[in-house]
Amino acid sequence: MNIILNSPLDMHLHLRDDDMLKFVAPLSANNFSGAVVMPNIVPSITTKQELYDYKKRIQEAIGDRIFEPYMTLFFKNYSKDFLQEIKKDIIAIKLYPAGITTNSEDGVKDIDIEHLKPMLEIMSELEIPLSVHGETNDMVMNRELEFLPVYEEIAKNFPKLKIIMEHITTKEAGILLDKYDNLFATITVHHLLITIDDVIGGMLNPHLFCKPIAKTKRDQKMLLKLALNAHPKVMFGSDSAPHDRRKKESSSSSAGIFSASIALELLTQLFDDYGKLDNLQAFVSNNAQNIYKINPPKKVITLKKEEFTIPSSYKDNNLELVPMFADKKLSWSIVK
Amino acid sequence: MNIILNSPLDMHLHLRDDDMLKFVAPLSANNFSGAVVMPNIVPSITTKQELYDYKKRIQEAIGDRIFEPYMTLFFKNYSKDFLQEIKKDIIAIKLYPAGITTNSEDGVKDIDIEHLKPMLEIMSELEIPLSVHGETNDMVMNRELEFLPVYEEIAKNFPKLKIIMEHITTKEAGILLDKYDNLFATITVHHLLITIDDVIGGMLNPHLFCKPIAKTKRDQKMLLKLALNAHPKVMFGSDSAPHDRRKKESSSSSAGIFSASIALELLTQLFDDYGKLDNLQAFVSNNAQNIYKINPPKKVITLKKEEFTIPSSYKDNNLELVPMFADKKLSWSIVK
Repeated sequence: MNIILNSPLDMHLHLRDDDMLKFVAPLSANNFSGAVVMPNIVPSITTKQELYDYKKRIQEAIGDRIFEPYMTLFFKNYSKDFLQEIKKDIIAIKLYPAGITTNSEDGVKDIDIEHLKPMLEIMSELEIPLSVHGETNDMVMNRELEFLPVYEEIAKNFPKLKIIMEHITTKEAGILLDKYDNLFATITVHHLLITIDDVIGGMLNPHLFCKPIAKTKRDQKMLLKLALNAHPKVMFGSDSAPHDRRKKESSSSSAGIFSASIALELLTQLFDDYGKLDNLQAFVSNNAQNIYKINPPKKVITLKKEEFTIPSSYKDNNLELVPMFADKKLSWSIVK
Repeated sequence: MNIILNSPLDMHLHLRDDDMLKFVAPLSANNFSGAVVMPNIVPSITTKQELYDYKKRIQEAIGDRIFEPYMTLFFKNYSKDFLQEIKKDIIAIKLYPAGITTNSEDGVKDIDIEHLKPMLEIMSELEIPLSVHGETNDMVMNRELEFLPVYEEIAKNFPKLKIIMEHITTKEAGILLDKYDNLFATITVHHLLITIDDVIGGMLNPHLFCKPIAKTKRDQKMLLKLALNAHPKVMFGSDSAPHDRRKKESSSSSAGIFSASIALELLTQLFDDYGKLDNLQAFVSNNAQNIYKINPPKKVITLKKEEFTIPSSYKDNNLELVPMFADKKLSWSIVK
């Protein structure tokens, strides 16, 4: 039996820039029909020129592969005129609390509704979705939990604003999702497959270190429930975030799991293990199309039940990327 | 002003074996008058011959430095005759739950009081202290908390058995300490200085990755209260656990922080910062002497207020050790 996925989408992706962009963009574009591209490169994407130039660099890296980069802007105070003009070129504006993850130093320092209000009003009016890395600066295991009241306040005050709780990791975020019509969420493949114990419970695995950090079994259970049942407000977003191996296996290792190249195999295996393959299409594409009202390019990915070993690493000139679950054997592979 | 420490003791130390032993034993013996040496080498120390041979290798590594290695046995079911004979050569028997940390695979698989009873009765009668790595196999952040009922049950059932809760990390362990006369504890310097956020809250730092994992600010506050006030049931134990740099900065990094070589400088700085220098002698020596009834060799360590930079690493032939807080500047240094 083969599994056919129509236009699979990655609704949260880090493509980086320069050599890394050239390296990883094809690895996403080989398997996905499109992806929401995060704006936290250096400098972060805040002007029309930066947006266009970055999109151009992405398209060059993709070459002739069928792949739509859905662009995002880095959240800051923009004028209504500017947003009106750029609206057609972006899928969302991404809000980062300052310093919470890689290249988020320019993020919002004071996550306060009064402070955010002017922008949120414009976005609401112009129907530009708000994508959020929802973490406080508190203790790493509690950061998402402590951010939830912010989601709630924004959702309540801006009922017409589409809010995407990115890469949710907690049971409580899953519960909150159903409380407000305008709340949506992405879920990564790694948060479906690992808990904090896989990161630091036995040996330390820097290749499973990410922000938000993986949480506990009770949290994982909620994420599995949402994803496996393809909850209509939930979309797949890999949050695939490449760092060179030397940066990951060092005394100061960057947060980020590289999964884009093997996400579909992992998801197929997971949905198969739980007897939920019927819901995979919705989780990896249809839900996102409905939520964002997008029509991604047609692209068919076929998976067959044939052993596939996740590569130990990918090498390209001076870069080496260790994917999530390197060397692990899966029972599904993509038909090339 | 100089600080004089009389016979400082490290009541929880991993000296390893072979080349690593030769490398690290002098680094402890330079500054400490003695240390409780953990038995989890490979194979773990369970016979008289192994104990004697290991002690001999330690003494050879120490050379003519003044330093007493207080030896321990790896917990298993020993006969009363054996324990009676070996009693004079050991300071405690160390209990590890199986698989909980480096080289603990041979540890106790079923931490159940009925299962442990025969040994605990003999130890109680022979007055051999029980040293415990108190963690369950549950979620990494909760492991110590979930182990506390085991401490409590042993303490209650064996009121004459001295129980050392090794390297405590939680507020609740600190509270439990005062509930039973026969409970004691060691505290590391790293658990006084870091929380989980220093390990995985920003960048990932494998050199601060240890078991038990560092906990939260509320827990750290309790440990500081106990140590800075030199609570009489609390002793300094570094749990210094060296691994070669390549093993730490890898895709599968071993748990263990190397701090023995700079522990006294760090502790002096900490006690000074809190205006508690008067309690340092008790925390690093007197309490341990009272608890274990030992008379360590006379050794005077003097610290002066002079800038000291923690080395980036220590190198010896093929080994490289990165100490805790590498490259950090401290304001106290040991007078050589």
